[in-house]
Amino acid sequence: MTQASIITIGDELLIGQVIDTNSAWMAQELNKWGIRVMRRVAVGDVWEEIWNALDEEQKHADIILITGGLGPTADDITKPLLCNYFGGTMVINEAARQNVLDIFTNLNRPIIERNLKQGEVPDVCTVIQNKRGTAPGMWFDKNGKVFVSMPGVPHEMKGMMEDDVIPMLLKQFKFPAIIHKTLLTAGVGESFLAELIKHFEEALPAHIKLAYLPNYGMVRLRLTSTGFDKEKTEHEVQQFFETLQSLVKEYMVTNEDEPIEKVVGRLLLTKGKTICTAESCSGGYIAHLLTSIPGSSKFYDGSVVSYSYKAKEDLLQVEKETLELKGAVSEEVVLQMAAGALKNIKADYVIAVSGIMGPGGDMPGKPVGTVWVAFGSKEKIETQKLSFRFDRMRNIQLTAVNALNLLRKFILAER
Amino acid sequence: MTQASIITIGDELLIGQVIDTNSAWMAQELNKWGIRVMRRVAVGDVWEEIWNALDEEQKHADIILITGGLGPTADDITKPLLCNYFGGTMVINEAARQNVLDIFTNLNRPIIERNLKQGEVPDVCTVIQNKRGTAPGMWFDKNGKVFVSMPGVPHEMKGMMEDDVIPMLLKQFKFPAIIHKTLLTAGVGESFLAELIKHFEEALPAHIKLAYLPNYGMVRLRLTSTGFDKEKTEHEVQQFFETLQSLVKEYMVTNEDEPIEKVVGRLLLTKGKTICTAESCSGGYIAHLLTSIPGSSKFYDGSVVSYSYKAKEDLLQVEKETLELKGAVSEEVVLQMAAGALKNIKADYVIAVSGIMGPGGDMPGKPVGTVWVAFGSKEKIETQKLSFRFDRMRNIQLTAVNALNLLRKFILAER
Repeated sequence: MTQASIITIGDELLIGQVIDTNSAWMAQELNKWGIRVMRRVAVGDVWEEIWNALDEEQKHADIILITGGLGPTADDITKPLLCNYFGGTMVINEAARQNVLDIFTNLNRPIIERNLKQGEVPDVCTVIQNKRGTAPGMWFDKNGKVFVSMPGVPHEMKGMMEDDVIPMLLKQFKFPAIIHKTLLTAGVGESFLAELIKHFEEALPAHIKLAYLPNYGMVRLRLTSTGFDKEKTEHEVQQFFETLQSLVKEYMVTNEDEPIEKVVGRLLLTKGKTICTAESCSGGYIAHLLTSIPGSSKFYDGSVVSYSYKAKEDLLQVEKETLELKGAVSEEVVLQMAAGALKNIKADYVIAVSGIMGPGGDMPGKPVGTVWVAFGSKEKIETQKLSFRFDRMRNIQLTAVNALNLLRKFILAER
Repeated sequence: MTQASIITIGDELLIGQVIDTNSAWMAQELNKWGIRVMRRVAVGDVWEEIWNALDEEQKHADIILITGGLGPTADDITKPLLCNYFGGTMVINEAARQNVLDIFTNLNRPIIERNLKQGEVPDVCTVIQNKRGTAPGMWFDKNGKVFVSMPGVPHEMKGMMEDDVIPMLLKQFKFPAIIHKTLLTAGVGESFLAELIKHFEEALPAHIKLAYLPNYGMVRLRLTSTGFDKEKTEHEVQQFFETLQSLVKEYMVTNEDEPIEKVVGRLLLTKGKTICTAESCSGGYIAHLLTSIPGSSKFYDGSVVSYSYKAKEDLLQVEKETLELKGAVSEEVVLQMAAGALKNIKADYVIAVSGIMGPGGDMPGKPVGTVWVAFGSKEKIETQKLSFRFDRMRNIQLTAVNALNLLRKFILAER
């Protein structure tokens, strides 16, 4: 089976200044086409480390994909290194040079020598033109192994992968099908699930793998199988996946690999209904999750992010007395927030949240992580108190995800 | 100089189902203490691959930090592997076992055998108790190298690193100081910057590195130096950093390593002013960025996320005729949105945005990526049209970051 390694280059990855989202995207894309990523390695802008990584990764894989280190500045040593590694000489690639010229002409920016240098490439590579930026990609063949160097700018790398690298790989190698089936559960722990599906797991054939992927108090279960007969592989996994679904039915949120906001969005679309939110502690994050879905304007009307007391009173008509008597983080206030949002935004469903996300702001009886959620419709609004104990960002995310799940269950119970 | 490698374990990392945020955090944390991360490797839940990674990484580093693969389910093979690798036998660790019991008692959940198994550890390791979850950490010494295995759940790993691993490493090794100085520029490209500071860069001593870190149309510049005399190292870098700042002054947003929302928040705090937003296309993301900062309630009042025409009319008093004549993505509409938000939320400053984030929704003369921004105060509101050409999520992020920068410049120009 053809295997790949991903090498990402850049000091910023090793000092943690940047989170590497490229590798995850690449792995996902390669997987779709049956290419298995065995290892991912990040190294700094250091000659010996990059050289070393090239030497090592070809022991593990037939395809070595490299990103980063191709910018126009002096800390980028990758291109001369590759030229050296594969025994070439730098030459000007006319198309790549013209591409740089065109980009600068379009931007109406003065072009300088170091920009034009981006049109240079080793004469031992197949040049992959960059339609989204100035740095060209480079494809090297050596001892039956393929090395592809791409820029580290995410959208440039992604475009290059989709337009050129994947099609070129498909021409050169024959890949099996990799089938993943993923479902999402909520309200149940990893070990409890494991117990519940113990016999199922034990009876799985060796070539089908089961993985538990916990995230935000939810757990995804994923079945994976590989085979050269795609249809047969797909069919077999589907059988097991159906059994798995029936075993965890009670806790299952979706049988697709998708986030909760997408599940809620589809549920609303199916019913032809819309949602609005009134957010205090989550600060617009629920709105952001919902609007991150393309086409969300069909089920999402709008939100009020009422951070201050004043905004709660003015935008949602929360009563001043309630705020003073009960505090902003209370069942009474989220109920009024929900009612205010429904009245002002006129959606069919509503989620309202108010809580203390930390690190400061805790009060007697209300520690950091205390959240009140109201959710429902014009006919009925329910409430629930949640408690988290993490950092600010995680508390915000957990609040959003759990509130969306509460509304999902509310809508399903209506039927 | 003592160097570290990070090994992350989990199939989910290699199929791209999960973005690895752990490594970035760990690298940042280690860096703070003078520990340089040379490589980061991700491998799947595969016995030979993990074994292999342990063999290889100790060639590169003295400290090998491992996360993931310690859950209670069958796909986690890391603990038996480590036991085998370091030649130990599994034994029950009473404190770890008691910790599992306590957690389940607190959660009021029935405990099962596989949970209790988490209290087992190899007898050749120093156990690091997990105060935030069930899987204990394990510290192994071998041939002068240190191997630490931690759970992959981010907040458990982070807590364990801070409470135990870092202090234990500081006892065993002597690390130099690593000093980073970072500034953020906006409105200028990487190569133009490089030209601007060319002579500065050429004159840098070899032990001080300059890096260009482009992100969202902004570029960070980072100086890095290392030395055992922390004060001297710090002082020297600071000298160069001040020169660098004066060279790029015109484009500099901040001379700290911080995001734009933090810069805007501090600017508001300093002036004792507040901000509100009226968001259409960004769907609450600007509000989310602002409220992700602890203590943001001091400068942030609230937002209206007006996704539908109706929400724009009802919550922000945008005129129906303007919407129909000019369309929601127009200068006229963002101006009315800004005015409506200021009136209803009564903050000092406002940002209003309306645009087309894609993939669908483009109109004649208004391609995907077209955004109108209004920004200003009660006294004056300015507008700007922006154009992006990326995917939905990136367009949303670019809209938010650029709108915040426009307001920042507006506030500075007021002085």
